Amino acid sequence: MIIVGFDPGLATLGYGVIQSNKGEKPEVIDYGVISTPKDKNLAERLCMLEKGVKQVIEQFKPDEIAIEELFFAKNVTTGINVAHARGVILLTAVKYCGNIFEYTPLQIKQALTGYGRADKHQIQEMVRTFLRLKAVPRPDDAADALAVALCHQQTNKFGKLFGI
Amino acid sequence: MIIVGFDPGLATLGYGVIQSNKGEKPEVIDYGVISTPKDKNLAERLCMLEKGVKQVIEQFKPDEIAIEELFFAKNVTTGINVAHARGVILLTAVKYCGNIFEYTPLQIKQALTGYGRADKHQIQEMVRTFLRLKAVPRPDDAADALAVALCHQQTNKFGKLFGI
Repeated sequence: MIIVGFDPGLATLGYGVIQSNKGEKPEVIDYGVISTPKDKNLAERLCMLEKGVKQVIEQFKPDEIAIEELFFAKNVTTGINVAHARGVILLTAVKYCGNIFEYTPLQIKQALTGYGRADKHQIQEMVRTFLRLKAVPRPDDAADALAVALCHQQTNKFGKLFGI
Repeated sequence: MIIVGFDPGLATLGYGVIQSNKGEKPEVIDYGVISTPKDKNLAERLCMLEKGVKQVIEQFKPDEIAIEELFFAKNVTTGINVAHARGVILLTAVKYCGNIFEYTPLQIKQALTGYGRADKHQIQEMVRTFLRLKAVPRPDDAADALAVALCHQQTNKFGKLFGI
């Protein structure tokens, strides 16, 4: 099964692609970011994100897509931009894949480390460990997207294990 | 020239369609709302909004589309939902029309009443007056969308008058 994780953003949208087969460890397939320039207007940037998300889905043909939910402790203006972007990502994911799942930052932290207050570095180190990589994937948004995909893979695994 | 105005929302998206020909008073063509049920998930609701916006554009073939910007004094959670919706509306408008313009609530108030602190009822009354209607259009979101379209029409008119 192919899982794509997305870490929503307007300037930088991270994606991570993993393969997860029953009884096997998850394998990394690809990861990266879709970037949009700040000197373009919002509508143009949303079009670029739609195109990028569509390309990722067409290239990797995921069975399931996991998308991080938004959390706004920091900056409402940034949050509004990310929410515009996330609306487009959700729309494109559901149109071209159909099987989408949403996870909060807390769920992702707990799935990867068993600890809801884990910091960014701990999460990234668990991504490296789960995928048996030599180094933490870069940039951060790509590592975060792999964390979302792994959260879905882990959640599904335990779901099946306990017959939920 | 056909102008469509959109008043963004997730549960209720208002649209207003006017005709504005040089030297003539603006005419109302249509107005209404696209609603999405609360028991559907966010992605499904975004798909419904995309479909509705596309239908409005295909039916009325606007030359230009005006979309209200977001303003968040009240409720951040509601604002995030509206921003998800607005991302989809912007994307769909730019894909199927191309000529899109954004106006803040303040710009809309000033364009219609000359007064930035005008309340909802004053705006709606001006919509009724500008379009020579017997009653204020209902529901509110449709009247608000007509206000956005009229703001664009008025802004354009003065822009041309003063050669801006």
